[in-house]
Amino acid sequence: MRNICLVISYDGTYYCGFQSQPHRNTVQDKLEDALEKLTGEQIKVHSSGRTDTGVHARAQVINFITESSIPIERWGLAMNVRLPEDIRVIQSREVPLDFHSRKSAKRKTYRYTINIDRNPDVFQRHYQLHHYRPLNLDNMESALQYLIGEHDFKSFCTVRTDKNVFVRTIYDARMIRESDTVVHIMITGNGFLYNMVRIIIGTLLQIGEGKRKSIDMLEILHARDRSKAGPKAPAHGLMLWEVSYDE
Amino acid sequence: MRNICLVISYDGTYYCGFQSQPHRNTVQDKLEDALEKLTGEQIKVHSSGRTDTGVHARAQVINFITESSIPIERWGLAMNVRLPEDIRVIQSREVPLDFHSRKSAKRKTYRYTINIDRNPDVFQRHYQLHHYRPLNLDNMESALQYLIGEHDFKSFCTVRTDKNVFVRTIYDARMIRESDTVVHIMITGNGFLYNMVRIIIGTLLQIGEGKRKSIDMLEILHARDRSKAGPKAPAHGLMLWEVSYDE
Repeated sequence: MRNICLVISYDGTYYCGFQSQPHRNTVQDKLEDALEKLTGEQIKVHSSGRTDTGVHARAQVINFITESSIPIERWGLAMNVRLPEDIRVIQSREVPLDFHSRKSAKRKTYRYTINIDRNPDVFQRHYQLHHYRPLNLDNMESALQYLIGEHDFKSFCTVRTDKNVFVRTIYDARMIRESDTVVHIMITGNGFLYNMVRIIIGTLLQIGEGKRKSIDMLEILHARDRSKAGPKAPAHGLMLWEVSYDE
Repeated sequence: MRNICLVISYDGTYYCGFQSQPHRNTVQDKLEDALEKLTGEQIKVHSSGRTDTGVHARAQVINFITESSIPIERWGLAMNVRLPEDIRVIQSREVPLDFHSRKSAKRKTYRYTINIDRNPDVFQRHYQLHHYRPLNLDNMESALQYLIGEHDFKSFCTVRTDKNVFVRTIYDARMIRESDTVVHIMITGNGFLYNMVRIIIGTLLQIGEGKRKSIDMLEILHARDRSKAGPKAPAHGLMLWEVSYDE
């Protein structure tokens, strides 16, 4: 019995999110189909966390238990020839049996990309939000600082009955300016609530549009009330960037 | 009567090339459909040149004659709301009636992108050739110099009966290294023969693989014989980058 850990990239455009659902086209279903073709086993895949419909992953981490004796360096190519071209295995390693890609994760980083050029970039249309109107990027950048630290993020969570604890720690939240018109918001934390990054970005966009001030981010955080925050930003600008574990 | 010139970007992945064909899904058909919806006129579009199935354009130039009085600054948005999301108008201007986007063109630049990383980049899969085996990039780079100048490029042209003159001038041919694993080949000339860039790239790949030497590029050029050159490289790595006109 072996525990295999794979790092995968996927373009979420044409999937109903990561997590397996009956009769739906999901990344997990494609991975489990490829694993069955490869090993003959019905394997359940664990991930570092689900991603929603249209959300991408540069480096999602998955693991699964298998009886297969395939050498570890062969898993990448063996899976890639059995996977659709928009899902790729980019790393593989064997891990201790108690490793779990979600429970063992220490930090996750998400990236959200916004293009404020007058014209959308046709080659990036599935990977960045094109915002037609100008944005005050400086005000957005300064609002990010209020997110850093341990906070109750209830205002930035789509309400679901099974979540009672809204406290998370954000280690870093920064804006990277790729050019005059393309910016990436990078947010790293010990975990994220449902829709948390997209609601933070939706709120930041209101700050950028001048509908709110940077300091409002702090007040929204203190309110612990979803109705105080902005709307959920579109999925396609979001990418799961990195998941870190203890060595 | 006005002559309108538009610069357009398109993702060629899902089109049967630029040029209109009966019952085929082409970029020209989509442009002419959008123009008819916008103006009520049946408009024939001229381009700087056709692109093949799967080839992209960052900045293709088109022009057409219209009776429409739509102000020039409105054409971009008016067309974009009527075009599929993988074709975008990025500039518009009114030009003299004798301007023709192909006949008036002075220089064209094509870009071909190659990724030699072990793993393909899932987000660039439609825009770069993933070459699984290593390439000697230095040898490829030095082969490019032999292309510069006025030459008979018959060796680099898919034979068609309607072409008798194979002389073209290449002003620049260079490699841009984006990273250790991603390179762009940029080629600028006064015009290109059918499949010329893709056959040059196919030959360069053989040089990179060690099947040929850099100097072979010169011998192939002198041979004026298509069978001496390498195969046509895949379409999806190719992008029409820029078209220049006299001011």
